[in-house]
Amino acid sequence: MVHKQTSLINGSFEQAISALDRGFSYGDGVFRTMRVHNGLPVNWPFHYQKLVADCAVIGIVCPSAELLMSDFQKLFEQELFLEDSHQVAKIIITRGEGERGYAPPVITVPTRVLIKSNLPHYSTAHSQQGVQLHVCDTKLAAQPKLAGIKHLNRLENVIARMEWRDEAIFDGLMMNQANQVIECTMSNIFVRLGNQLITPDLSQCGVAGITRQRILGLGLVLGLTISIQEISFEQLLDADEVIVCNSLYGAFQVTKVADKIWVKQGLADKIRNIVIHD
Amino acid sequence: MVHKQTSLINGSFEQAISALDRGFSYGDGVFRTMRVHNGLPVNWPFHYQKLVADCAVIGIVCPSAELLMSDFQKLFEQELFLEDSHQVAKIIITRGEGERGYAPPVITVPTRVLIKSNLPHYSTAHSQQGVQLHVCDTKLAAQPKLAGIKHLNRLENVIARMEWRDEAIFDGLMMNQANQVIECTMSNIFVRLGNQLITPDLSQCGVAGITRQRILGLGLVLGLTISIQEISFEQLLDADEVIVCNSLYGAFQVTKVADKIWVKQGLADKIRNIVIHD
Repeated sequence: MVHKQTSLINGSFEQAISALDRGFSYGDGVFRTMRVHNGLPVNWPFHYQKLVADCAVIGIVCPSAELLMSDFQKLFEQELFLEDSHQVAKIIITRGEGERGYAPPVITVPTRVLIKSNLPHYSTAHSQQGVQLHVCDTKLAAQPKLAGIKHLNRLENVIARMEWRDEAIFDGLMMNQANQVIECTMSNIFVRLGNQLITPDLSQCGVAGITRQRILGLGLVLGLTISIQEISFEQLLDADEVIVCNSLYGAFQVTKVADKIWVKQGLADKIRNIVIHD
Repeated sequence: MVHKQTSLINGSFEQAISALDRGFSYGDGVFRTMRVHNGLPVNWPFHYQKLVADCAVIGIVCPSAELLMSDFQKLFEQELFLEDSHQVAKIIITRGEGERGYAPPVITVPTRVLIKSNLPHYSTAHSQQGVQLHVCDTKLAAQPKLAGIKHLNRLENVIARMEWRDEAIFDGLMMNQANQVIECTMSNIFVRLGNQLITPDLSQCGVAGITRQRILGLGLVLGLTISIQEISFEQLLDADEVIVCNSLYGAFQVTKVADKIWVKQGLADKIRNIVIHD
């Protein structure tokens, strides 16, 4: 396989991790995916804060921001001199290597991985006409002890993403076992009902992304009341507007879910301009 | 870290896997842990059957038994000449490498890993006096699409195992969100009520191990009626006997859970002699 990606493992230009790394054995770690503009991670303070918080949930001490920033400077050295370059950085922090067995070693040294890859091509149709969602048959399991964090146990997202191959579909809508809307396989979701903008509660399942977090703070800017509430699939279909978001594309309006079609409006574009270009 | 383990990756003596392996990125794979006696995997037909079945659930074509057996011969070559040697083999099968994103590549080449390690020391007290369980605060999430299989998404087991450090505790009892008994962090569980031997239903969560599967077929040998049923924590405490099992230690009687103490009886020893030495 030819890779357009390069990577740093613990600060060294390597592309291999130990088969005894607990990230590999058990998915015992967390990760972040972010845009890189001219060699610098976009929204880095939000990403680093979230990385530290997610590590803490599973008892990992996150490497320092200085260490991670020196990794960025090493891996994206060339991009620092480019005019208007865009890449993707993925940071993975694991608990480190361990012997066999679920109990972590008494002393653990976290493994940090930084991977560079190309920014996916987002068609102008996505921003101009909106995007279409598949309704996933795979439901998210409720696990309050791990909900909200972006850990490496992502088999649910994988099997949900395997449900479709139609390239017209942008993402897959995921519900919990009670058929409440939670998120999409790679996105968070908001629905607008009049001047209320609502995003689902993620205390039982789902990943609380930093773009969702940023949008939650945009009430005054957008002139909307923004809150976290339960959303049923029926409420989503009845909404005035549905918007998906993540750190790479910012935000897109959803204009098709199953048989339901929405006309294109302007809120997603406004949000995208704020969360990506600020 | 000094490793007493050695490993084969795709048949080669290596200890590193690609940081782009989907087993590392997403826990997109399955594994097995088994005893190796004089260089040969114990209960191999059961393990291989389960490996093929688990791979199939998440859409991976399991490498052939011939390929895996040639890996065993390579990694355990020295042990084949020993008189009475015991090791542990761990087989990991992942979907292979992939670019960023949950969608698997159209063509995937599974990664296979075989890791050799020492058999843990099981104290004679475990077999003679029985073992003690911690009652885990971490509850298992219900995910029927992944229940029963031994996939690489094992963060629940990790955080459950991190709940205790007392070496007197052998394993941790895990329940589902409705407080029904499911399994232990590294073991399956059976309770005996009179001449009924019962193990929990694993259609919503838990790992259906091959020792559990073997015990389910021992009804005639043991003179017991063996069945799969829901078991509440209260029913477990009221049981005549509680037994935990896995592929490495076979079976041990549980003689202490919270304040409840059971006298040592003979069923676990009988089962252990069958499932490990057959």
